[in-house]
Amino acid sequence: MFFASDNGGPVPQAVMDVLAEANNGYAPSYGADPLMDEVRSRLRDLFEAPEAAVYLVATGTSANSLALATLVQPFDTVFCTPCAHIHEDECNAPEFYTGGAKLTLVEGGDRMTPDALRAAIEGEGNRGVHGPQRGALSVTQVTERGNLYDPDDLRALCDLAKGYDLPVHLDGARLANALIALGATPAEMTWKAGIDVAVFGGTKNGLMGAEAVMIFDPARAWEFELRRKRGGHLFSKHRYLSAQMAAYLRNDLWRDLARAANGNAAYLRERMAEAAGLRLVNDAAANIVFFEAPASLHRHLQRSGAVYHVSGDPKGGQDAPLTGRLVCDWSLPRDEIDRFAALLPGM
Amino acid sequence: MFFASDNGGPVPQAVMDVLAEANNGYAPSYGADPLMDEVRSRLRDLFEAPEAAVYLVATGTSANSLALATLVQPFDTVFCTPCAHIHEDECNAPEFYTGGAKLTLVEGGDRMTPDALRAAIEGEGNRGVHGPQRGALSVTQVTERGNLYDPDDLRALCDLAKGYDLPVHLDGARLANALIALGATPAEMTWKAGIDVAVFGGTKNGLMGAEAVMIFDPARAWEFELRRKRGGHLFSKHRYLSAQMAAYLRNDLWRDLARAANGNAAYLRERMAEAAGLRLVNDAAANIVFFEAPASLHRHLQRSGAVYHVSGDPKGGQDAPLTGRLVCDWSLPRDEIDRFAALLPGM
Amino acid sequence: MFFASDNGGPVPQAVMDVLAEANNGYAPSYGADPLMDEVRSRLRDLFEAPEAAVYLVATGTSANSLALATLVQPFDTVFCTPCAHIHEDECNAPEFYTGGAKLTLVEGGDRMTPDALRAAIEGEGNRGVHGPQRGALSVTQVTERGNLYDPDDLRALCDLAKGYDLPVHLDGARLANALIALGATPAEMTWKAGIDVAVFGGTKNGLMGAEAVMIFDPARAWEFELRRKRGGHLFSKHRYLSAQMAAYLRNDLWRDLARAANGNAAYLRERMAEAAGLRLVNDAAANIVFFEAPASLHRHLQRSGAVYHVSGDPKGGQDAPLTGRLVCDWSLPRDEIDRFAALLPGM
Amino acid sequence: MFFASDNGGPVPQAVMDVLAEANNGYAPSYGADPLMDEVRSRLRDLFEAPEAAVYLVATGTSANSLALATLVQPFDTVFCTPCAHIHEDECNAPEFYTGGAKLTLVEGGDRMTPDALRAAIEGEGNRGVHGPQRGALSVTQVTERGNLYDPDDLRALCDLAKGYDLPVHLDGARLANALIALGATPAEMTWKAGIDVAVFGGTKNGLMGAEAVMIFDPARAWEFELRRKRGGHLFSKHRYLSAQMAAYLRNDLWRDLARAANGNAAYLRERMAEAAGLRLVNDAAANIVFFEAPASLHRHLQRSGAVYHVSGDPKGGQDAPLTGRLVCDWSLPRDEIDRFAALLPGM
Repeated sequence: MFFASDNGGPVPQAVMDVLAEANNGYAPSYGADPLMDEVRSRLRDLFEAPEAAVYLVATGTSANSLALATLVQPFDTVFCTPCAHIHEDECNAPEFYTGGAKLTLVEGGDRMTPDALRAAIEGEGNRGVHGPQRGALSVTQVTERGNLYDPDDLRALCDLAKGYDLPVHLDGARLANALIALGATPAEMTWKAGIDVAVFGGTKNGLMGAEAVMIFDPARAWEFELRRKRGGHLFSKHRYLSAQMAAYLRNDLWRDLARAANGNAAYLRERMAEAAGLRLVNDAAANIVFFEAPASLHRHLQRSGAVYHVSGDPKGGQDAPLTGRLVCDWSLPRDEIDRFAALLPGM
Repeated sequence: MFFASDNGGPVPQAVMDVLAEANNGYAPSYGADPLMDEVRSRLRDLFEAPEAAVYLVATGTSANSLALATLVQPFDTVFCTPCAHIHEDECNAPEFYTGGAKLTLVEGGDRMTPDALRAAIEGEGNRGVHGPQRGALSVTQVTERGNLYDPDDLRALCDLAKGYDLPVHLDGARLANALIALGATPAEMTWKAGIDVAVFGGTKNGLMGAEAVMIFDPARAWEFELRRKRGGHLFSKHRYLSAQMAAYLRNDLWRDLARAANGNAAYLRERMAEAAGLRLVNDAAANIVFFEAPASLHRHLQRSGAVYHVSGDPKGGQDAPLTGRLVCDWSLPRDEIDRFAALLPGM
Repeated sequence: MFFASDNGGPVPQAVMDVLAEANNGYAPSYGADPLMDEVRSRLRDLFEAPEAAVYLVATGTSANSLALATLVQPFDTVFCTPCAHIHEDECNAPEFYTGGAKLTLVEGGDRMTPDALRAAIEGEGNRGVHGPQRGALSVTQVTERGNLYDPDDLRALCDLAKGYDLPVHLDGARLANALIALGATPAEMTWKAGIDVAVFGGTKNGLMGAEAVMIFDPARAWEFELRRKRGGHLFSKHRYLSAQMAAYLRNDLWRDLARAANGNAAYLRERMAEAAGLRLVNDAAANIVFFEAPASLHRHLQRSGAVYHVSGDPKGGQDAPLTGRLVCDWSLPRDEIDRFAALLPGM
Repeated sequence: MFFASDNGGPVPQAVMDVLAEANNGYAPSYGADPLMDEVRSRLRDLFEAPEAAVYLVATGTSANSLALATLVQPFDTVFCTPCAHIHEDECNAPEFYTGGAKLTLVEGGDRMTPDALRAAIEGEGNRGVHGPQRGALSVTQVTERGNLYDPDDLRALCDLAKGYDLPVHLDGARLANALIALGATPAEMTWKAGIDVAVFGGTKNGLMGAEAVMIFDPARAWEFELRRKRGGHLFSKHRYLSAQMAAYLRNDLWRDLARAANGNAAYLRERMAEAAGLRLVNDAAANIVFFEAPASLHRHLQRSGAVYHVSGDPKGGQDAPLTGRLVCDWSLPRDEIDRFAALLPGM
């Protein structure tokens, strides 16, 4: 009963197959391999962005940090939510890669509203040379708390940012899950909404470690390439990154994987709705379920073999409500979900 | 006839097999996977260093830069040769990761001598607060020009560095090739000689992208972990790095691969020795052959399908001697070497 | 009627006199001048810290940033209030000097409470290698909003920080004003309370540009020196910094200046208390007065020649309360205060 | 007999007088003071550059580093000589301010030739994304070894740099001495020769600590301002920097001071030419004299009270030639020179 993250599961056989296909004879290194040509072409088609610069890196942290470093100056600030991965879970990587830019936390929790963003932007950047300059907006889709922005939401945020001349970065570690959940096209969810650089994650959706960075304005591409190399993120045997992403794109594998993960979460949510003694927190249709339950129930579930994260004040006593996070990946067996559900009160 | 680099070839089937073995069910992320336990244990045994901290990253540049950042302060300088990969081929990654440390180039070319190192150290670090401080020594084994340090050579350099309280980093992108060429043990070539942090490369010797960083003083380990994460080099699905390195270590695969690569180079050198009109530059027993030949011969070889790098002044005319670099990897077919040799004058 | 800041006034003649005294013949450079010996000795006596390392720089931003860079690592975070100068008014200098450390904002406004600090510390540093590490606490005395910590308050914060092994930095741009206001000794307000590095500001209290950095643990001194030089903050003709600080310390000039400034603010507050239509916000006895008044009153005052900053939502209309900040320096003539008071309603 | 540096002497009374003039009442802070208006206007006139952005900082290291950071990217390299102050004497400040750019040392010693520069540029920047990119040229006038570039020399270097699209920085810590020595105008020596950013030093030529940064392309100005603030180099009580520079510029004081310093060096050189047992190394007409003499003579001179730096191998024995550096500042009394000369053999 593994719900700890979508980075714990295996990769589908199709990925292994393209790795094997790639593993043949000599290939040009550093991204000049033919599979990267395929990836580039497929991603440009998928995003309806024939001019976009397309790069692969192996981790989400590097994808985000390199993207931000290409968008902002060291004396700038990046607007993001207090829950953003770039703020909470990257050990200051954005500050490192940008040369010391700041992150300004937009109030209001996990899902940014235009009003909160406007207030944050107005609150920064009005002290002339004394304060950090307004640098970029960073939004996350699916959000860290499992919520979604539909394309109109994103456009509203981007429009606001553009009104201040701010470029926009999309942390799309789970972009595939969002696209499936919302039925939107990659273009609608990115450049058509005003996104300048989007990370199209593969790692959390079935790859070993491969993230595509879509830079919709190719004028920024060369700087990205230099920063990627300088960060040690340019792979010499690049074909093994390309192979993963090629497999992901061929036959819409990414859609199948995201659909499976979202479907698992929907099924889990459905089963949990029948149970007593807990409260579902988010209703988004992606692959993460947050629920509130007493500490005692969490303890029971975890002792029975359910692996997932709990947050909240652990000193609150037996009945204090704590929040559990259940992440479903594409490979999660339905009977594991059933086993989990069977542990819940009233089932 | 691919001699451009040892990063262009495929990975052996044994690596694919362990990847497939690893690709099964859920595994703890971020390096807590069981295969990493195996890797850690095998590397500690191999290096006779039961206390060493062991980490994996996917690129040589990140391995070197993170190691150096753990060893020096931003106001320090790192002593290396003018040919060092950290100076020439990492797009300022060491400067980036160290927060702005300098590299001081030790005169005398590709293979550092103690006298030259002493002169360089004496030349820096004598200006008090005004100049950079003496930070660390970085040596490369096999060197960039295909030369070797035997363990006594390394010990002489390390002893000298230690006399100035400088820690020593070993860029071992081709350490396996050196160990085979010299018949030395990993311990003799690293900590017994005075190396503090060694990179044991896998990528150039048959892996997709995996380098082990051996930190012999575990007091430096936690800082390395934080810097690795901050650099975006901590893999969530770490098992796929672990699997590569586990395969490398099981059954001494790394030795077989390095022996094959070195053997290919020895065979190539042997065949070239029979030819006229060229001069073999280095005689080291690793996997790189440098040779001088007239521009016209290089052109002939390359037009005939030999892929390799040439350096020197291209404006020197038809007969100007240029230097070619031929790198042999483990997978190079002998008949490709024969085809190459057959193109040489007098063959 | 200049109340905009305490960085707009002249320096007292005593400072000019010591500058003239210093301006005589040759003197050793880079801090080896005899006046610096005097400064070092006087500051060690004043702070009852015979072992402290003592340095001068010319700006508060450099003093704070260099101090923080000496206390934390780039993967750490510094706890401070949302109003802190290091967060709001230094254009990312702390991020720059620390190599990319983060600032974690302690909730609750301008004056930090132990509970809020504990919550902030607990909220960070519990994500292992993924989040920033707990690095240091930074407190400001006098705070940005004109409030004070008495020595017991400071000790409570420092004790809490020390419970997490965090060193503490004191931004003391207006420390002199606080010492006078509270009648505490420099030792009580710094190392006896648990401060590790204190900035003893001179610039806002009558010097041209000179801040003393008191490092109570001399083991950190050499690193500070190197970082100061690397930041371009080591003055070659250091005697002119020394002279300012020597003048400041001789005959307790710093006390006279702070007493004058605080006295001006007390007189101003007293006069304002007689007026109608405004509300005094802070009651601290240092040199800054915050008051709320309708936008129309601020406009009246500023049009009549009062120079000061106003904050709040300017779109709130005629009667919306806005906050004015009146800073009194040592040189402020009492009749300017009287002129200002005479402009207030009911006077 | 103080010849150690031109940073050991006093400032002329005229500077003290303008400081006193400036020290009157309230003045706008952060560079908005009226004296800065005067400085800006005078420097634009002096350099015949009505559009130039003009800034003051207090140290040469900050002036150089901020200028370079404005000109290059972190993945670039700066071409300079091995003797350059930015390389030898700034404790990695350029690497710090640029975010990790490299310095590439142009061979051939203290005074750069176009051929050596071309070779250095060609040697870097031909490895695509793998090596540092060609960033900027930095030249020093007067050089560290007391040599000069005439305007044609500078133009040749700048033309070459411009052929590679490289901007050019001039470290002019002693630019005043060069202008007097060569009889060139500031414009001829800077933008007319192709310099993009010039530091016009005041500190080594009689000021307490003030350097003007002339940015001839105002499009770079705002970034410089932000980097200056972020570096902690923006003075709140800026008028005291302005006052120094205003005094420097009024009545051509800077010319008088440089003429005095150069004249002292000329007189010293003249007297030394009469002596036996030493060799004058440089013949440039600025304010630094290098001479070779046996170790025994240096010891004699220093024991007799001459203060200056000696370089060379101190283990060479009594008669080994060592190089002495004698720097003359504006305030050096002629009878001190006579005293020194009288100590020389054959006098």
